[in-house]
Amino acid sequence: MDRKKARKKATELVSQMTLEEKASQLRYDAPAIKRLGIPAYNWWNEALHGVARAGQATIFPQAIGLGATFDTELLGQIADTIATEGRAKYNAYSQEEDRDIYKGLTFWSPNVNIFRDPRWGRGHETYGEDPYLTKELGVSFVKGLQGDGKVMKAAACAKHFAVHSGPEAIRHEFDAIATPKDMEETYLPAFEALTREADVEGFMGAYNRTNGEPCCGSPSLQKILRGDWGFQGYFVSDCWAIKDFHEHHMVTSTPAESAALALNNGCDLNCGNTYLHILKAYEKGLISEDTITESAIRLFTTRYLLGLFEETEYDKIPYSEVESPAHLALSQKAAEESFVLLKNNGILPLNKEKIKTVGIVGPNADSRKALVGNYHGTASRYCTIQEGIQDYLGDDVRVLASVGCDLFRDRTEHLAFTQDRLAEAKIIAENSDIVILCVGLDETLEGEEGDTGNSYASGDKETLQLPQVQLDLMEAMAESGKPVVLCLMAGSDIDLSYAEEHFDAVMVLWYPGAEGGKAAARVLFGDVSPSGKLPVTFYNTLEELPDFTDYAMKGRTYRYMENKAQFPFGYGLTYGKVVVTDAVVSENSAADTNGTSVSGKAGFESGTNTTAAPVTIQATVTNQGAIDTRDVVQLYIKNADSSLAVPNPELAAFTPVFLKAGETKTVTLSIAPKAFTVVDETGARTEDGSHFHIYVGCTQPDKRSMELAGVKPVEIEYSK
Amino acid sequence: MDRKKARKKATELVSQMTLEEKASQLRYDAPAIKRLGIPAYNWWNEALHGVARAGQATIFPQAIGLGATFDTELLGQIADTIATEGRAKYNAYSQEEDRDIYKGLTFWSPNVNIFRDPRWGRGHETYGEDPYLTKELGVSFVKGLQGDGKVMKAAACAKHFAVHSGPEAIRHEFDAIATPKDMEETYLPAFEALTREADVEGFMGAYNRTNGEPCCGSPSLQKILRGDWGFQGYFVSDCWAIKDFHEHHMVTSTPAESAALALNNGCDLNCGNTYLHILKAYEKGLISEDTITESAIRLFTTRYLLGLFEETEYDKIPYSEVESPAHLALSQKAAEESFVLLKNNGILPLNKEKIKTVGIVGPNADSRKALVGNYHGTASRYCTIQEGIQDYLGDDVRVLASVGCDLFRDRTEHLAFTQDRLAEAKIIAENSDIVILCVGLDETLEGEEGDTGNSYASGDKETLQLPQVQLDLMEAMAESGKPVVLCLMAGSDIDLSYAEEHFDAVMVLWYPGAEGGKAAARVLFGDVSPSGKLPVTFYNTLEELPDFTDYAMKGRTYRYMENKAQFPFGYGLTYGKVVVTDAVVSENSAADTNGTSVSGKAGFESGTNTTAAPVTIQATVTNQGAIDTRDVVQLYIKNADSSLAVPNPELAAFTPVFLKAGETKTVTLSIAPKAFTVVDETGARTEDGSHFHIYVGCTQPDKRSMELAGVKPVEIEYSK
Repeated sequence: MDRKKARKKATELVSQMTLEEKASQLRYDAPAIKRLGIPAYNWWNEALHGVARAGQATIFPQAIGLGATFDTELLGQIADTIATEGRAKYNAYSQEEDRDIYKGLTFWSPNVNIFRDPRWGRGHETYGEDPYLTKELGVSFVKGLQGDGKVMKAAACAKHFAVHSGPEAIRHEFDAIATPKDMEETYLPAFEALTREADVEGFMGAYNRTNGEPCCGSPSLQKILRGDWGFQGYFVSDCWAIKDFHEHHMVTSTPAESAALALNNGCDLNCGNTYLHILKAYEKGLISEDTITESAIRLFTTRYLLGLFEETEYDKIPYSEVESPAHLALSQKAAEESFVLLKNNGILPLNKEKIKTVGIVGPNADSRKALVGNYHGTASRYCTIQEGIQDYLGDDVRVLASVGCDLFRDRTEHLAFTQDRLAEAKIIAENSDIVILCVGLDETLEGEEGDTGNSYASGDKETLQLPQVQLDLMEAMAESGKPVVLCLMAGSDIDLSYAEEHFDAVMVLWYPGAEGGKAAARVLFGDVSPSGKLPVTFYNTLEELPDFTDYAMKGRTYRYMENKAQFPFGYGLTYGKVVVTDAVVSENSAADTNGTSVSGKAGFESGTNTTAAPVTIQATVTNQGAIDTRDVVQLYIKNADSSLAVPNPELAAFTPVFLKAGETKTVTLSIAPKAFTVVDETGARTEDGSHFHIYVGCTQPDKRSMELAGVKPVEIEYSK
Repeated sequence: MDRKKARKKATELVSQMTLEEKASQLRYDAPAIKRLGIPAYNWWNEALHGVARAGQATIFPQAIGLGATFDTELLGQIADTIATEGRAKYNAYSQEEDRDIYKGLTFWSPNVNIFRDPRWGRGHETYGEDPYLTKELGVSFVKGLQGDGKVMKAAACAKHFAVHSGPEAIRHEFDAIATPKDMEETYLPAFEALTREADVEGFMGAYNRTNGEPCCGSPSLQKILRGDWGFQGYFVSDCWAIKDFHEHHMVTSTPAESAALALNNGCDLNCGNTYLHILKAYEKGLISEDTITESAIRLFTTRYLLGLFEETEYDKIPYSEVESPAHLALSQKAAEESFVLLKNNGILPLNKEKIKTVGIVGPNADSRKALVGNYHGTASRYCTIQEGIQDYLGDDVRVLASVGCDLFRDRTEHLAFTQDRLAEAKIIAENSDIVILCVGLDETLEGEEGDTGNSYASGDKETLQLPQVQLDLMEAMAESGKPVVLCLMAGSDIDLSYAEEHFDAVMVLWYPGAEGGKAAARVLFGDVSPSGKLPVTFYNTLEELPDFTDYAMKGRTYRYMENKAQFPFGYGLTYGKVVVTDAVVSENSAADTNGTSVSGKAGFESGTNTTAAPVTIQATVTNQGAIDTRDVVQLYIKNADSSLAVPNPELAAFTPVFLKAGETKTVTLSIAPKAFTVVDETGARTEDGSHFHIYVGCTQPDKRSMELAGVKPVEIEYSK
């Protein structure tokens, strides 16, 4: 069904409703209208990395880990799988007449906010700090989730529009000030692409204000979204965000005024209860019936697009699809591709034959929480890192284990001395040939404002350091004299300088999903090489960053930072040695390309009808190492002429490539015309300058990446 | 080292101490006395079913499950294993100079309180409701823990002396009134046997008062313990129990008075801080220096007996003994022997070949908490019931899973309707060939006063019913029309009448330890037959019981109850059909017996020098079924003449026996002279009456057991 037909049907249906009935449908928990045969529908569902909060579902790696895969195809497959499970569950729940929250087909995912500051507690819900990576992965996710069937398989939702990245503690009253240039250069591209390229069905407004206007009731943002970009789907408020208008933002005085401000500015659906005041707002003349009707039509258009009132091709998806073996295998594969190896002195991959006893130490080693991050479902099987290693080693190798310390509290037993598990960790190190040390955070330490479980802070991180008890544990393990492989389970930048200095290998596992332990064991013991890349910069200090509340990009993220990173965006080792040995601009760059992978889209504003063609690069890539591996070829571009240019080379294309030891391949990278533009202070995108440095490699072209990876990207001087 | 030598050394050491130093040693966290070379020692350690709260350790089934094994030999092995792990950990911790709480060798286990009332939250720490079973298992546990080496392997502690079984909420001010007859008949036998037969090293006083005197400062109880029974070990208060004297019991007015009352009544060690006031009490003339000296000597005698000041045979026990494969196998075996099959319409054992999809439903199915009960260590691997079944079935059978409901809250997701997982459970039942339904409690629902995690009540149960959400889930599963096997994970009597009526099989798994899931899978799929027996009565109602605060035994437990049980003490099915076909009094009953197993000890007060000999019974036992199984031959005795007799036949001997299908064995049961005595109202044990009914079978001789098991025990009329 196309949108036009769906809207027509929606218009007809809505025309039969009374004003009261129309108003009633603008809430997330829309009631049934029995006389019209309309069942109740709860719009709120989540699918950030698997169907969430609705019971059993495949739990994929948390979004930040998916970001680290740099794999658009994988993201598409995962989202399609999520939609399949969502449909299977929806089919089964509907049969039980269970139309509760988290059981519909309107998923409020993905989160394409830019992970602007490492302190943000919800950063792990994003694909990282880079607009291009975020856009590419977000577009794939939305396409995968929505499918290309006769009806939409599931409805995705781009959130949280337009800028939103902490602080969590003040999100209900905060006004994020972003310059027009930063908006166009950094904050908006992913949102724009999700609607222009992927036709995302939903948009969710953020809690905070953006440049003075509350995001769920903002004329400026609506002009961009519905005016400039032509978005035709439904717009939902973040949950209980509309009451923030009068309670915290103080831009209105009453619930009725808040409802009116939101609805008059295109917010069709209220997650929360403020739209209970719609009729009062109507009576006061603050809202017209047409506005109410239009939002109702948009919402029913979505429901028609999903085929909720007809038989569809997806009705037969059986419940057995939920957590099917194939889906679990995909989750494991995603985890394997998401791990980022930051240091390896040669200890990895571990040789099972040479180890008699492995010590597994650390608060996250046997933690299910650390597998799943936030916004997750329930797995019928969780495989922690410890369990994964135990299963992998079977009876051949003895595994000793200790939590070593609490995740953040100063002791594990109420009446004990502080650090009452430290001695055990030391004992285990002493009795082991090697220590696998699993430190990090979980959603109780980095998460969302108001999370009941969040006992550490408001959800945001206060520092890049791990909790002191974990630092002590790291020191004790370093002093043990045993080889130590550090596995970090966290969803954001953590200071790993101590680990880098003292441990034999350092790997970031993010929150790897329910199959995380299997994936970790396979990677640690070399069944598969790690190949993920950092989707965020790991800084040396927080001090070098602007204030957390400052939304200016200057000095933030790899694109604007002035200092050396501790571990740069785009960096990540493998067990092989993949080198880009050559890269050339393809002759027929205007023609269609048929390389291994193509990134970037025609038109310098994606979706517009400019005829500018992408520039195509052919890169020769060789695995000079002894171990087969996937790697990610990355292309960075820097405008050499323009004073408006982003200061550092920025990602403009990437493609994963798998290379056997010794193998050489040619991959094709396509640079969208937009990559050759700059943004002026008014936010206008323009061409300025004609000389460009193009870097093709498996890292950024910065010094620190070269130091760490020991390989220099190929540089091309390109002139337009 | 014998006690005399140890006491001599202790006396010498203590004689070098100042009064202040002596007083300082009477606290659980005894400080070092450097000038005498005495290291700090923390007396508080726990080992109820594995070394607890000190990090990694083999977690055996909770005590109530161990009770259900009716297997004294197994209890001895388990306790020996715990001592081995305790030594291994002590050796390693000492090397790290970690002398913190839970890291010493004085374990405050076992709990030999009589599980008098099913409401008691801590009942699962006991071996059940029967004095004889409790004594037999307790004696084996203590012997196993303390070992028979040159020094004591670890020190056990009999608790909570003398009567203690709830209510938890009022334990700090409560006065338990127990008649002399109930004391001698029910409450004291296990305590007496632990000191007389097993030479238990420690005794812990209860929080409550017994017959007016606080148990940790009771002249009457001390007279029994040290006077009548000749106990020579150390006596410790329950934790912070001594301050209850002035704060809650109001039997003293100041901390100094409380300290004096406890110390003057033989309470050598204070778990708590009240003994900080010892010197003040001394200055006021409330305590003599001799009393302080005596307690210090007793405490150092224990430390010498443990060999804490010398090299011992146990110093070389390596850390690798902790959770060794053999120990884990023992834990699994114990779990298998502990499961009590209450109903089986023939569905069990399940046939893997005939099942394509198994639905595993219920809040305890994948719960680690439900594996471990309370007072537990940390396993390096937990195998939940769900995981055990998944591992057992491998890829051959599809497993679907749902929690079905929260353990007790009315929903699993904050904003959802109530019972938001019920539909999922129904869906899973519909999509499965069979449902395994795992309901029950965990230590957050039945536990101890003051447990921080206890959010449901004060620790005690308010009812025999499972939480309403679980009852709803059971009903939904019954209505699914699918075969359902109900697995109860709880530590006490739960009303299973609905389950009995509606489900195909009902099995009690207790809190089965970290290997519980493996054991459950092996039993459910028939690798091993269940063979545990209820160590507590499952009543039909709470109403038939006396008030929870009433410590009179009338109407309580199988020995005194007047109504039919729902499931009787001693009852439990197997996959075989073990029948006692004949039982005769052995000719040479006064001589040594060499049967399969011998229970009961010579002397009608155990340890006294009466020359009365046990009566020996030879029973012929046949497995008339088609499946090999263990079973427990039980002997009950009823005095036919005496008006003082316990009203119902009571357990006087038991022995586990393993029989292949069709196999017949002769087992020997030995009835201690004490079993032929009665207790008068003054608490005096006496011979009264000469005719006895002796019943030998695999259940009690009550009607309900015969109804359920379909087999009548062999009855012997015996005259003295």
